[in-house]
Amino acid sequence: MDERTYTADAEPGDEATVAGWVHEIRDLGGIAFLILRDTTGKIQIKFEKDEMDDDLVETGLGVHRESVIRVAGAVEEEERAPTGVEIVPDSVEVVAEADPELPLDPSGKVDAELPTRLDNRTLDLRKDEVKAIFEIRAELLRSVREAFRGLGCTEINTPKIVATGTEGGTELFPITYFGEEAFMNQSPQLFKQLMVGSGLERVFEIGPIFRAEEHNTPRHLNEATSIDFESAFFDESDAMDACETVVRAAYEGVAENCADQLDALGLAETFEVPDEAFPRLSYEEAIERINATGELDEQLVWGDDLPTEGEHALGKEMGQHYFITEWPSEIKPFYIKDKDDGQLSTGFDLMHPSMELVSGGQREHRYDHLVDGFEQQGLDPDAFEYYTKMFRYGMPPHAGWGLGGERLVMTMLGLDNIREAVLFPRDRQRLSP
Amino acid sequence: MDERTYTADAEPGDEATVAGWVHEIRDLGGIAFLILRDTTGKIQIKFEKDEMDDDLVETGLGVHRESVIRVAGAVEEEERAPTGVEIVPDSVEVVAEADPELPLDPSGKVDAELPTRLDNRTLDLRKDEVKAIFEIRAELLRSVREAFRGLGCTEINTPKIVATGTEGGTELFPITYFGEEAFMNQSPQLFKQLMVGSGLERVFEIGPIFRAEEHNTPRHLNEATSIDFESAFFDESDAMDACETVVRAAYEGVAENCADQLDALGLAETFEVPDEAFPRLSYEEAIERINATGELDEQLVWGDDLPTEGEHALGKEMGQHYFITEWPSEIKPFYIKDKDDGQLSTGFDLMHPSMELVSGGQREHRYDHLVDGFEQQGLDPDAFEYYTKMFRYGMPPHAGWGLGGERLVMTMLGLDNIREAVLFPRDRQRLSP
Repeated sequence: MDERTYTADAEPGDEATVAGWVHEIRDLGGIAFLILRDTTGKIQIKFEKDEMDDDLVETGLGVHRESVIRVAGAVEEEERAPTGVEIVPDSVEVVAEADPELPLDPSGKVDAELPTRLDNRTLDLRKDEVKAIFEIRAELLRSVREAFRGLGCTEINTPKIVATGTEGGTELFPITYFGEEAFMNQSPQLFKQLMVGSGLERVFEIGPIFRAEEHNTPRHLNEATSIDFESAFFDESDAMDACETVVRAAYEGVAENCADQLDALGLAETFEVPDEAFPRLSYEEAIERINATGELDEQLVWGDDLPTEGEHALGKEMGQHYFITEWPSEIKPFYIKDKDDGQLSTGFDLMHPSMELVSGGQREHRYDHLVDGFEQQGLDPDAFEYYTKMFRYGMPPHAGWGLGGERLVMTMLGLDNIREAVLFPRDRQRLSP
Repeated sequence: MDERTYTADAEPGDEATVAGWVHEIRDLGGIAFLILRDTTGKIQIKFEKDEMDDDLVETGLGVHRESVIRVAGAVEEEERAPTGVEIVPDSVEVVAEADPELPLDPSGKVDAELPTRLDNRTLDLRKDEVKAIFEIRAELLRSVREAFRGLGCTEINTPKIVATGTEGGTELFPITYFGEEAFMNQSPQLFKQLMVGSGLERVFEIGPIFRAEEHNTPRHLNEATSIDFESAFFDESDAMDACETVVRAAYEGVAENCADQLDALGLAETFEVPDEAFPRLSYEEAIERINATGELDEQLVWGDDLPTEGEHALGKEMGQHYFITEWPSEIKPFYIKDKDDGQLSTGFDLMHPSMELVSGGQREHRYDHLVDGFEQQGLDPDAFEYYTKMFRYGMPPHAGWGLGGERLVMTMLGLDNIREAVLFPRDRQRLSP
């Protein structure tokens, strides 16, 4: 059935059958042009009304925009055509007629608001610059997985239906699982840790996570893609090295394989692979530098989490990806290992100038300390016995991190809203499509 | 921190630090051997009691099995050692002591039942033959993705939280989504179809699906990994071609890159990449051949679904992967397109001799027919308007399929239970770990 020629492959001298969407019809009187669009590009179909069968002309020029048609004919050189070639049709078949009124204009001539675009993603994705985002997203995932394999990781898939959440009952979506209460998992954290104590030692997972946060901001999603890494015998510094390798690989893959897509997004000239090592700033330095910018109304003190405006002020100064390390133990989760003095943790964040991308650290691998941590966090260690128990049977020191997939796409491409990086986003208001 | 040498890389003449698990200790009196295991293999550590520091000997030989230790010393040739080398230790550090009693024996000398193994996956995965399954699973996913890219597909990720299920309200797990009723998605079917009408045209997704089936069999999971494909301008025959390419690629990837793992599973001699084209049997032929085997108590008649025993009888005869095509329309879902006569559908299944792997077909792309289909299925088309609406704006003919990821692993490796192919399976009784 798919005996068609992609528009990008139509060469002068060919007899070709192309199929795709009616992008535009320009009727100049005696001559008319139909621009047909497929996934590879666009091609001009020429109708010389006096020299062609009336039925053919009527079919070709009477069809509504965005209908699917199939056109067979001779490919000819034509300098004035957008791609340098055009097709003189022998036949035109209307495969799927579109309604005359469209909820949004895929030619992009009429702007649409984001909610309209998300309600009509099928049409929205006919625009080059939208399609480009998702082609880049796919390439990013490909190159990230390749980088993980280069680091000796085994890909894992962990369950999304769980009996207990990683960080307790808040922010979890409840499910009814055959009459029992269960939840959608907010992070593969505990499962990936269980794997570093197995014979696999070093693992990655790319999969959905679910957070019932009430936030409704341009940076939050209730269902997101998490890129997770965990390795036995790694400390936080090793984990940061791995993180830098993976983030850089994503940029490199896109730079190498997505030239057309970057062009469609107007990024061909400005896109850059980060070339320098990502600086590592201690939390203490970070708050000092933020305070020194004078951009906050109130000075930050030790133990404060970094407010969004603080992140922005520091990001502006840094102008590149950077790590913040040595966070106060008290503001990192219980499964992050403390440094020797107990005040500082091994936790780190990777920051893009505009927002946090990654959270990671060395993990607490000592059974007694871990169980204490659960209690201090107000969690019942018994509910997590499936996890803690394994720490009694030879759990090596280990470290890892989680990277927000959509945030990586968003920051890489300078998108204003994280929903631009998801086909069908889920947020406080949006559950469909 | 990870300055260690993997056991597989320790060469005679090296001063090496290795780290891993205490697999076994054999004390022969004046001399004792500790076998240390890491992700790359095992290495012998030799303790000559009279010639070594007492503390060192005591630490090395007093440690419980499956503890994590770090050993530094000289690597020496030793023909009688399992890998031809051994380490004479200068230092032994106990990194994480294991309890003396283990819930299962990672050396595999004592068999454990599947529930015990699943409760203690960390320990279970220290066994070579279990680890091998998941390393093969990872390679299978890698090669499948590569095959999809070879077919010109874009990788997509579609939402797992949905307002309506693909095939209605049965078999769905309900979620509370900010006070609204929602469900965990049972298939990316509708979303991937929406993508073929977009500029992407050809897509794949590998992700979790959720089915609240009450079945509790060795072939069913309530959370599984679905490998999905969908392409514009494909008919069912094109989709079967793509399916064959992808399944064969999975076998080829494993054959090329998992020799050690196949060996660990005892499959080194018998593993075969399917070399012939997968035969395509019509449903009518299939029931005739099943009836002819005489293995069913009751003869099948037109319109019957194939019972498991029927699949097995036919599978035994076929002895290879095969497609069953031209199913009666009435037993295929409404979104599968009928053939011209209306009695036969374009639906197909790919069968392994032991079970169904894939379900696919050409889809109904005509708006009116699709809406009728919803009604005939007893579903309210209005609830699916987000989906049907897009069929009014130029939806090309298209076809695709869904392949059960765990079933592919299970049939490839001859596993008895599908739970062997999942790290942390979810079934009627199992929600944790």
